Amino acid sequence: MKESPGVVDLLGVLAYAELSAYARMTEDAAVLAPSLGDRVALSELAVTEYAHFRLLRERLAELGADPAEAMSPFVKALDAWHAQTRPGDWLQALVKTYVGDGIAADFYREAARHLDPSIAKLVDDVLVDEGRSQFAVERVRAGIETEPAAGGRLALWARRLVGEALSQAQQVASARPELALLLVKSVGEGQADISRLFARLTEHHNKRMAAMGL
Amino acid sequence: MKESPGVVDLLGVLAYAELSAYARMTEDAAVLAPSLGDRVALSELAVTEYAHFRLLRERLAELGADPAEAMSPFVKALDAWHAQTRPGDWLQALVKTYVGDGIAADFYREAARHLDPSIAKLVDDVLVDEGRSQFAVERVRAGIETEPAAGGRLALWARRLVGEALSQAQQVASARPELALLLVKSVGEGQADISRLFARLTEHHNKRMAAMGL
Repeated sequence: MKESPGVVDLLGVLAYAELSAYARMTEDAAVLAPSLGDRVALSELAVTEYAHFRLLRERLAELGADPAEAMSPFVKALDAWHAQTRPGDWLQALVKTYVGDGIAADFYREAARHLDPSIAKLVDDVLVDEGRSQFAVERVRAGIETEPAAGGRLALWARRLVGEALSQAQQVASARPELALLLVKSVGEGQADISRLFARLTEHHNKRMAAMGL
Repeated sequence: MKESPGVVDLLGVLAYAELSAYARMTEDAAVLAPSLGDRVALSELAVTEYAHFRLLRERLAELGADPAEAMSPFVKALDAWHAQTRPGDWLQALVKTYVGDGIAADFYREAARHLDPSIAKLVDDVLVDEGRSQFAVERVRAGIETEPAAGGRLALWARRLVGEALSQAQQVASARPELALLLVKSVGEGQADISRLFARLTEHHNKRMAAMGL
């Protein structure tokens, strides 16, 4: 394989992220949606995540990697993230979908930036938003309008989502140095560049929070 | 609408059956699959059920029906069926997928038999097997080979699945007489015809049990 050594790791973690997001969103839709229409709307997004998983699995196979093997180093961390951020209600589920997937997508895109263009494009394609934001943003804004006290509660929830995500990401980075290296390479070696990366991620996160009215 | 009055009911119950099967199979795959490969294999089947749900939803909309309204009379019975037949392990999940979906499909096909051919074809299309049987049959047979005692336990499980399905079907039939009427029409009015229908359903069920080695 002529690919950078971190590529299989990147596609592996992303594949498992899509596979587990699909399962969790499906469950949240079935258990938490306040109506059949909402249930179907979130299920549509879940099934789209699965379609993205399929693309990643195919590319892993093309690279000569076993998809299950490529995913397995990341199962524990992603499962732990989901277990620690199980939504308690419908609005929490929507915020999780939007904020959680958003910050994860920012990380994956940064890691893919200096890779082979076909890999960077694949990563970009599977992270495409496809109306997920609009759906979550509209419902969450409407929810806060109906019940203004929900705003503060959801802002705290979003902070917890990010905290848990960073804590799991740190563990993955120390266990998979080649994957971590992709991120460092993408920003250059200097401390200033890493600070800029975090500033960029924070800015994107704050934009998402503002969009939801949080 | 020139359609028979039971058509929206039939497409509605089938749509919710596909939507709930998708959610349950997704959860069983995530929770019970013994490997990532098995998890993906069952998830593929779950996502196929969702694709079938989409076809039914489109047709309901074309008939001028609201899909959520068409599904809602059947939510309680199908949810009760799933709640009472929650698989305890991977082999139970596979038997449920094969036996439960199989007997339900037999009923839906009987009900659609004398409807407008485009409806009958749609029902047939969304009930197409697409390798589900092969997957479940192979894994269950292999499971029994590894652990012969599992056979008796799974045969009892299958009997319970059918018993619960018949009990829920009876409640649906008494609550939705137009849907029940489709089934009666398909076999003619006589008691002998209904006996033949049940003989046919039993025969199909026994074939599925034999295929799994139960």
